[in-house]
Amino acid sequence: MIYFDNAATSWPKPPEVLAAMEHCLREVGANPGRAGHKLALAANRLVDETRKELAALFNIRDPDRIVFGLNATEALNLAIKGLLKPGQHVVTSSMEHNSVTRPLHVLQGRGVEVTKVPCDHTGAIRVEDVAAAIRPDTVAIIMTHASNVTGTIMPVAAIGRLAREKGLRFIVDAAQTAGVLDIDVEAMHIDLLAFPGHKSLFGPPGTGGLYVAEGLELTPLKEGGTGSHSDVPGQPEVLPERYESGTLNTVGLAGLGAGVKFIRREGMEKIRRHEQDLTRQFLEGLKKIEGIRVYGPQDAARRAPVVSFAVKNRPAGDIGTILDQKYNIACRAGLHCAPDAHRTLGTFEQKLVRFSFSYFNRPDEVDYALRCLLEIVEKDIPAPEGSSGCGC
Amino acid sequence: MIYFDNAATSWPKPPEVLAAMEHCLREVGANPGRAGHKLALAANRLVDETRKELAALFNIRDPDRIVFGLNATEALNLAIKGLLKPGQHVVTSSMEHNSVTRPLHVLQGRGVEVTKVPCDHTGAIRVEDVAAAIRPDTVAIIMTHASNVTGTIMPVAAIGRLAREKGLRFIVDAAQTAGVLDIDVEAMHIDLLAFPGHKSLFGPPGTGGLYVAEGLELTPLKEGGTGSHSDVPGQPEVLPERYESGTLNTVGLAGLGAGVKFIRREGMEKIRRHEQDLTRQFLEGLKKIEGIRVYGPQDAARRAPVVSFAVKNRPAGDIGTILDQKYNIACRAGLHCAPDAHRTLGTFEQKLVRFSFSYFNRPDEVDYALRCLLEIVEKDIPAPEGSSGCGC
Repeated sequence: MIYFDNAATSWPKPPEVLAAMEHCLREVGANPGRAGHKLALAANRLVDETRKELAALFNIRDPDRIVFGLNATEALNLAIKGLLKPGQHVVTSSMEHNSVTRPLHVLQGRGVEVTKVPCDHTGAIRVEDVAAAIRPDTVAIIMTHASNVTGTIMPVAAIGRLAREKGLRFIVDAAQTAGVLDIDVEAMHIDLLAFPGHKSLFGPPGTGGLYVAEGLELTPLKEGGTGSHSDVPGQPEVLPERYESGTLNTVGLAGLGAGVKFIRREGMEKIRRHEQDLTRQFLEGLKKIEGIRVYGPQDAARRAPVVSFAVKNRPAGDIGTILDQKYNIACRAGLHCAPDAHRTLGTFEQKLVRFSFSYFNRPDEVDYALRCLLEIVEKDIPAPEGSSGCGC
Repeated sequence: MIYFDNAATSWPKPPEVLAAMEHCLREVGANPGRAGHKLALAANRLVDETRKELAALFNIRDPDRIVFGLNATEALNLAIKGLLKPGQHVVTSSMEHNSVTRPLHVLQGRGVEVTKVPCDHTGAIRVEDVAAAIRPDTVAIIMTHASNVTGTIMPVAAIGRLAREKGLRFIVDAAQTAGVLDIDVEAMHIDLLAFPGHKSLFGPPGTGGLYVAEGLELTPLKEGGTGSHSDVPGQPEVLPERYESGTLNTVGLAGLGAGVKFIRREGMEKIRRHEQDLTRQFLEGLKKIEGIRVYGPQDAARRAPVVSFAVKNRPAGDIGTILDQKYNIACRAGLHCAPDAHRTLGTFEQKLVRFSFSYFNRPDEVDYALRCLLEIVEKDIPAPEGSSGCGC
């Protein structure tokens, strides 16, 4: 199986990720922050080490302002619902994932107003359009760092500056960029940074987190046992406990720490270059296949390592199924949980086939995929019967 | 290290738990329910298998009515905040964990009324007191199945009958009983059952779930990508997706499935008998040590395998530290994230030392702990300097 579905979850992981998880489960095992005994303290240290690794990666001064949860979706829910109040206005883009649009949809029902700034046919947004959408009652800008459909990189630094100038909070969804692109919460004026642990940070599923800038108070999404300040009736004020009720995914976070260490050791630049090379190779190969239409920027440097395309007028699900069943290639066909993005691209009906690359993919895999796609187009290979192939 | 902190998280896990996690991370890896490719389908099957195992364990007809999250705290937040509306009244006990009391505390600020039925000095509740607390505006009863401080087993079946008779919803916190005691959601009339994966179900941390009875609609705690119905602007109606936004902890859930299989293969009765024997042995041993006061029922059969006690007038934290540092015993001293329970017992100031047993503990470990405690009492062993020992 050749795996080109890294934008959903990266696979394989560096070997040290499993080793760290195994160590944690076998040798540590205990619940961090809940007792004074040696195992609990060791679990605490593991989790704190992961916080420190991430803080170094994102230039976060205080690691305790990173709070962990199940995934980036939880982090975005905490950021969006924890921040916005009825009567407030927020600006976002037309390329967002459902993890942003759905919480906003719920808040719209509770009196929050939302402006979705339209992106162009490559998924790109203009900073002046974002500026023009700001109103006197605007409190925040929420934006993905890169589209999960087209990979289009948003001008996050410029929008961060704009947010700072206008006194707005800036929430960034780094689902496709954490571990891929440089993220500096200070330089980019990011107030709330949501990231998954299991994508380009190479951690296991079940990990994700939110950076909460100093001075920013959110309504917690969940309350419960925090392992400290147990005597107060509500949530404690102190971070990370305030937003981390219940037992953390210690084992997964140990794995995530190993994943981030791997990235910092290999070097973000080297990883980025490799993924960009694969993206460029794929984009150039697709250009040569008549009948394939690529969406998003043509320049690989303007993308996260994600490429979506349509094959003639064929439903994306059929192509996904053929790639899986005939050629043993795992990719993702459908709406990619981002119907707004597909509406922006005009592909809401046909949907798209998405390839997404990781540091562990190789150029020969991309070559093989290109040959398969050429064959599908030239021979008009039909989809196996009874299969839908469409995920989300 | 002898580990008696299983009520926080069980350790060690059966070997097949790690094996299942390793298999999932190495061989499957993909995101379930998000694509049609073979790996994603395999991930989906793993998660579904865990749902089926749990459904069989709890006598749940439709496995899709089990929704997974980070932990039992998340499940309780979804149950409590998803169900209760301002102006409604709810009945609970005075022995609840902060994972119940804190969400209720927040809801009280939003117009939900809460009656905490007082338990006696053993942590026991009388069904007639619960009945007497029901008012015309009561919509639900929320109760732990067994106290995490005293292990006291609540009369869940009787309270379930009462709830059914009165037309109330019944929410059960099975944090200390899932995998320990028989739970039958049909026979016990449980509408919402919250359980952790990482305690007596032997899964890894980062797993937990909620059973949602048929016909019951909750407001989701989180919205986002659900891998299906991506075109609808809000959350889909269908379970489990409605309450499972974002990427699940596939690897952890594979481990949880192996944990539940282990329990079903060994047999709940055998596990229960072993844990009860250890509890009885410990209770009887403690009785013989002058100066130790045990809280909760004297009869091991009336407890989950949890025993909390005070040593003379000494702060619990000191005893916890001595046990850890001098004797290499991991237990838990403090408030156990359950201040209400400690108020009920009259131990809010002194706090308690808690031992909690698992199937993997042995009688000789209990004997050793009893000898250590005797020595601490007889020699009045002081706590090491500079240590607090108190967790939560």
